[in-house]
Amino acid sequence: MNTNFSFHLKARDGAARNGEIITSRGSVRTPAFMPVGTAATVKALYPDQVRETGADILLGNTYHLMLRPGAERVQSLGGLHKFMNWKGPILTDSGGFQVMSLSKLRKMSENGVTFQSHIDGVRHELTPERSIEIQCQLGADIQMAFDECTPFPATHEEARTSMELSMRWAERSMRAFEHFGGPHQALFGIVQGGIYEDLRTRSVESLTRIDFPGYAIGGLAVGEGHEEMIKVLDFTLPQLPDNKPRYLMGVGTPLDIVEAVARGIDMFDCVMPTRSGRHGQAFTWQGKINLRNAKFADDPAPLDPGSDCPAHRDYSRAYIHHLFKAREYLAPMLLSWANTAFYQDLMKQIRQNIAAGTFDQLRERVHEAYAP
Amino acid sequence: MNTNFSFHLKARDGAARNGEIITSRGSVRTPAFMPVGTAATVKALYPDQVRETGADILLGNTYHLMLRPGAERVQSLGGLHKFMNWKGPILTDSGGFQVMSLSKLRKMSENGVTFQSHIDGVRHELTPERSIEIQCQLGADIQMAFDECTPFPATHEEARTSMELSMRWAERSMRAFEHFGGPHQALFGIVQGGIYEDLRTRSVESLTRIDFPGYAIGGLAVGEGHEEMIKVLDFTLPQLPDNKPRYLMGVGTPLDIVEAVARGIDMFDCVMPTRSGRHGQAFTWQGKINLRNAKFADDPAPLDPGSDCPAHRDYSRAYIHHLFKAREYLAPMLLSWANTAFYQDLMKQIRQNIAAGTFDQLRERVHEAYAP
Repeated sequence: MNTNFSFHLKARDGAARNGEIITSRGSVRTPAFMPVGTAATVKALYPDQVRETGADILLGNTYHLMLRPGAERVQSLGGLHKFMNWKGPILTDSGGFQVMSLSKLRKMSENGVTFQSHIDGVRHELTPERSIEIQCQLGADIQMAFDECTPFPATHEEARTSMELSMRWAERSMRAFEHFGGPHQALFGIVQGGIYEDLRTRSVESLTRIDFPGYAIGGLAVGEGHEEMIKVLDFTLPQLPDNKPRYLMGVGTPLDIVEAVARGIDMFDCVMPTRSGRHGQAFTWQGKINLRNAKFADDPAPLDPGSDCPAHRDYSRAYIHHLFKAREYLAPMLLSWANTAFYQDLMKQIRQNIAAGTFDQLRERVHEAYAP
Repeated sequence: MNTNFSFHLKARDGAARNGEIITSRGSVRTPAFMPVGTAATVKALYPDQVRETGADILLGNTYHLMLRPGAERVQSLGGLHKFMNWKGPILTDSGGFQVMSLSKLRKMSENGVTFQSHIDGVRHELTPERSIEIQCQLGADIQMAFDECTPFPATHEEARTSMELSMRWAERSMRAFEHFGGPHQALFGIVQGGIYEDLRTRSVESLTRIDFPGYAIGGLAVGEGHEEMIKVLDFTLPQLPDNKPRYLMGVGTPLDIVEAVARGIDMFDCVMPTRSGRHGQAFTWQGKINLRNAKFADDPAPLDPGSDCPAHRDYSRAYIHHLFKAREYLAPMLLSWANTAFYQDLMKQIRQNIAAGTFDQLRERVHEAYAP
């Protein structure tokens, strides 16, 4: 198993880690931010652009892809990488989170979840076995155990019941992966347990007994807020094996990211850069600005004249403002690109500052620009 | 006047011409197809992509730009080229055509036309003088005389009255251009007269007396159909000066283009490649196909594996079909790019075949793919 998958730490600065995940499709420099390619495309970006921003790995969504175009179809067309023209590694989620947030008429059982597609109402079932089978049909390099994302807020009892189900599903996910998965692929476990330290501890114990090549923190960024999220990281991360990558799912803002890195997180994914871009918001090293704001109508300055990214460098704020007013395609195209480039620049700075032992200076800089 | 603007013929094949327009912002190889950048952007394309497809020159729309973001604003931001990040030459229309097709509550007079913006209802006026002033504020390299696009169908009397007004406006446009224009810019006249040979003849006589550095054929592609359009070209083009570029406005399909080239047209513009692309239609050397069609859902072939354009080469028809079904930005992005590249490839083939004396073979090839 996992003979072509490995993780190496290269530098530390406090609890922050700089390392490298090796996959058969290339290496992933950590801490890494994975742009989200929900429906086999990072919205409004060409794959070449995504690569050129410095992204080593993409995330694909099992729920969306199983419904449209269908996992069997993607497989028969040569797999997700070929389908979407992305040569680097891809991580897929298990579908559990989107079933909870998007599908209709869900019915949970010990076996899994049945639901109606939000697209055409067709009935589907996801179980740990089916989720892993789909992720293998897609050809994902890193796959995620099928879990139930515990809602927030949840009582201790609710969070415990949910976490225990997810742990039984984690065991079944690993058995399914041993059946469907290849030696060039890896399956990560997902720590659940809501905001409760004892439950997170028990979840980590269950998962480390199974011995995954990587561990995700699930059930965060679901409404609990930055402070609560940090608390969960504070008591959970020290319990995870030091020599395995740690992935904080669905996070987050630049502030979330530097604070999670400071505690030892290695991987992130979030729709924020592209979704915010489509709505006119640009992330910059001076903070977030909204290009729809009338004050930019006559502003000749680019977003960041010193950036390597043409979207930051070659177009004025006045022009981008105009494109949003005129509802032109180029508006979301430019800001999705600019924000994806900003996030990758942020990760590059994070890696370089960890390696140089100056991570706290960068953390301070992000606080100045992004603290509320 | 026009000391930095010139036109040189390099080869002929029958009435078809291959030449070059020299402007201070670079040369335009003819026959040329100008992608349309209505609101200071070729819809769903980056300017670098447009350039890389082989386009030498863009068209901008005076009507749209005067309303939003406003000609004075574009001027104060450094002109249209800088605003939209396009370094090559730009041709602007006069606004007359869009006033007729888009604005509300129009009132025509000898002086010009007053109208309400289709965006916010604000009242504006366009006259020959104001149109040229705006085109100069935008900084267009090639500008168009302000005219009335004669509706179709029109009686001989209606077409005559309209043409005569346009000829008086052409004279005023030239006077205004002598005031506002620079030595690096050129103003083209527009032949009107509907489908009537005697009126087209009189229009050509009026314009050639003014002596423009280029001539457009206006009032076509407005519903008269391919055959009628060809008839008008057949009797109009031989009357135009041989040593000046000839521009067929708003045209057209690949078939329209080769037939117009066969009669001596040098320049074209049309929204068809980008608009069709947004609606799922792809132009190929085997004809037009609609990627929304279910038969492409499992088709692993790219649009054209032999093309240099990544949009033709690197994505399967099944993937593009999926992107349209999922309403992803990348769908119109890829097909607008592919179609813009196809049109530029068509023009390149046209130029090469004229130079080689084999234009009729290319014309036959386009007929096989595109004849109804």
